Amino acid sequence: MIYIVRKEHFNAAHKLYNPKWSKDKNMSEFGVCSNENWHGHNYEIEVTVKGKINPESGMLVNLKYLSKIMKEEIIDKVDHKNLNLDVPFLEGIITTTENVTIKFWEILDAKIKSLDNSECRLHKIRVYETPRNFVEYYGEK
Amino acid sequence: MIYIVRKEHFNAAHKLYNPKWSKDKNMSEFGVCSNENWHGHNYEIEVTVKGKINPESGMLVNLKYLSKIMKEEIIDKVDHKNLNLDVPFLEGIITTTENVTIKFWEILDAKIKSLDNSECRLHKIRVYETPRNFVEYYGEK
Amino acid sequence: MIYIVRKEHFNAAHKLYNPKWSKDKNMSEFGVCSNENWHGHNYEIEVTVKGKINPESGMLVNLKYLSKIMKEEIIDKVDHKNLNLDVPFLEGIITTTENVTIKFWEILDAKIKSLDNSECRLHKIRVYETPRNFVEYYGEK
Amino acid sequence: MIYIVRKEHFNAAHKLYNPKWSKDKNMSEFGVCSNENWHGHNYEIEVTVKGKINPESGMLVNLKYLSKIMKEEIIDKVDHKNLNLDVPFLEGIITTTENVTIKFWEILDAKIKSLDNSECRLHKIRVYETPRNFVEYYGEK
Amino acid sequence: MIYIVRKEHFNAAHKLYNPKWSKDKNMSEFGVCSNENWHGHNYEIEVTVKGKINPESGMLVNLKYLSKIMKEEIIDKVDHKNLNLDVPFLEGIITTTENVTIKFWEILDAKIKSLDNSECRLHKIRVYETPRNFVEYYGEK
Amino acid sequence: MIYIVRKEHFNAAHKLYNPKWSKDKNMSEFGVCSNENWHGHNYEIEVTVKGKINPESGMLVNLKYLSKIMKEEIIDKVDHKNLNLDVPFLEGIITTTENVTIKFWEILDAKIKSLDNSECRLHKIRVYETPRNFVEYYGEK
Repeated sequence: MIYIVRKEHFNAAHKLYNPKWSKDKNMSEFGVCSNENWHGHNYEIEVTVKGKINPESGMLVNLKYLSKIMKEEIIDKVDHKNLNLDVPFLEGIITTTENVTIKFWEILDAKIKSLDNSECRLHKIRVYETPRNFVEYYGEK
Repeated sequence: MIYIVRKEHFNAAHKLYNPKWSKDKNMSEFGVCSNENWHGHNYEIEVTVKGKINPESGMLVNLKYLSKIMKEEIIDKVDHKNLNLDVPFLEGIITTTENVTIKFWEILDAKIKSLDNSECRLHKIRVYETPRNFVEYYGEK
Repeated sequence: MIYIVRKEHFNAAHKLYNPKWSKDKNMSEFGVCSNENWHGHNYEIEVTVKGKINPESGMLVNLKYLSKIMKEEIIDKVDHKNLNLDVPFLEGIITTTENVTIKFWEILDAKIKSLDNSECRLHKIRVYETPRNFVEYYGEK
Repeated sequence: MIYIVRKEHFNAAHKLYNPKWSKDKNMSEFGVCSNENWHGHNYEIEVTVKGKINPESGMLVNLKYLSKIMKEEIIDKVDHKNLNLDVPFLEGIITTTENVTIKFWEILDAKIKSLDNSECRLHKIRVYETPRNFVEYYGEK
Repeated sequence: MIYIVRKEHFNAAHKLYNPKWSKDKNMSEFGVCSNENWHGHNYEIEVTVKGKINPESGMLVNLKYLSKIMKEEIIDKVDHKNLNLDVPFLEGIITTTENVTIKFWEILDAKIKSLDNSECRLHKIRVYETPRNFVEYYGEK
Repeated sequence: MIYIVRKEHFNAAHKLYNPKWSKDKNMSEFGVCSNENWHGHNYEIEVTVKGKINPESGMLVNLKYLSKIMKEEIIDKVDHKNLNLDVPFLEGIITTTENVTIKFWEILDAKIKSLDNSECRLHKIRVYETPRNFVEYYGEK
């Protein structure tokens, strides 16, 4: 059982805002992150897949293929976008790194389960909002 | 003559957009950076000051003081903000890293010239938009 | 179950020295780290908490709050200090990164257990002594 | 139970090539990584050992000793070498990071099991091929 | 006068070897870097251009365009290649970072001089062989 | 004219303290950096030398040799030391990064001038006290 990790990045705007709350409540809960005119980040996403090495290729999964999946399923949809306004799969959620990471998991988990190499499974997603703040998710309910 | 550098960071939203141009012209010139709903970055700013060492303190300038100036004059005004909408000193300019860096220079240069230590001058500002894209300015006309 | 990580830093002096041993035994065991006049590091501490996302806020825990706890309970007590001489909660221990990390755990674990959000638990502490040497602790006995 | 990590680096050439396959099949599977004249990387290796802290020394294992083992058993044999041609313990395998990491595990696991401190065990090896591509192995079959 | 920097990376094999010297002389001069079976690096290249900001676009040069030039003129020709064997413009030179950097300068300087924006000039090239070893060139004879 | 840079690191303790001043004056000037029991840093030093490439070797200077000079002249004397107490060439100065950098310059400049390759000169020394605070010196009076 081996684990292999690929890192990609994207730049996006967002704000933390719960529309059910007053502006004051949003400010007291989210602080400057609730600035109505948005702020943004250079996000980084690390995807870990696990499984058995294919003895023919010596690889668990071709990283170029994993990178391609990450780009098509995630990066192309969030890069240079507003996470609150422009991303269908994030609609209606508060765009905390926690919530965003779980949505990325749902998309990539389904995609990776459909790969030919049935041994290969999504193990972990780590999303860096900044180098000092990041979230990890293992698909645990 | 010694040079001393302090690095700070801020997170902001922006877009590249020239209101005199059509939306198509903006898109052809700025690409995804012109996305109308904004995107954003974890910016980093490095400020270099130069001058003679004060023989009493062994310092050119107290870095805590330089850091305080950077925070009060720059970071507090741009962090968790929209560079196009929320920052008075950026009003009316296209928020490329080039233009933003020059505005930072103008503010910090005036402030540092007003310091007690008359030997200390602003030498360089470097602004990272991403770890792969950055701008340097030395106050050259 | 989501994991969220906050990183802070501090600068401190220390030495590795067991007062029950001779100076020679300390030198043979700890090498240059036992230099009697101290040496020091730019330490980094990463704290991981885990739990369920609060559906109202979309957050496990407000990172500003976690950062505040780390600063008040740890950073303010070790930053620009001598770990062997200036830190009450490290008294009497050899200040290896292993021992220091466990002390940080004890303090933060108790504090985090007392938070309102009863779902939120300390999961892991990682302390970097240098970018090449670091320790991880999960509270395992 | 504490975990301690040491990071080392080495620079090496390699190519991904299965001699049982045609050149075309190698190219379609491995792409530019199969370039017959080799390419190379600045590899980084992080070794995590786990165990109980020795109460006399406050250490799980002296990092200088762990570093020495990594240098003698691994770095000296792969640094400034061709992984496909120059390294006896990699002979006959495809030099994917997956395969290389498992070979490093086998060597270091045996060596660490032979240490005096019987509590200390190899826990994890992480090998970075680039800052964006890396593999983790825990000795799981 | 503003300076803007773009960073790209490539992975390549090479060795330091002067065919006019004996193998022993090569070993005594270049050490392990002369290993006949090659070694390799994750190279990074930072290109700085300087000039006046275009007031219409707020940019010195579109970084996407600068990145495209770097990829077409340099990266595509050296990435996943052997610098001694596979790169026509490096033929006959010893592939030290010094020599490689100057060749990159010659190619990019000519290309950038041919850009529409006649104000924009190549200012500096920095090439990292490792994070600890790098070369800078300003086109000075 | 080419510039080549080598980076090394060392870990040291120090405090900022002017013995001619009262303890209060030291505290008001240097803040927590004047803590009497010391603090410390993971310092990094980057040395840039400049000159003409030797056409025989393709090198300005063998980086292994530059690294050896840095280690023998600087690192061995400051690593795991107290900059205020243990380093003869720093005696009597306030150990600000400014002062330390100039002392490093004086030692390395003299040493490099005595090298065989008379074309090779020290150009710049950069010393990082932390990733956020660093000093640069070019030998300018």
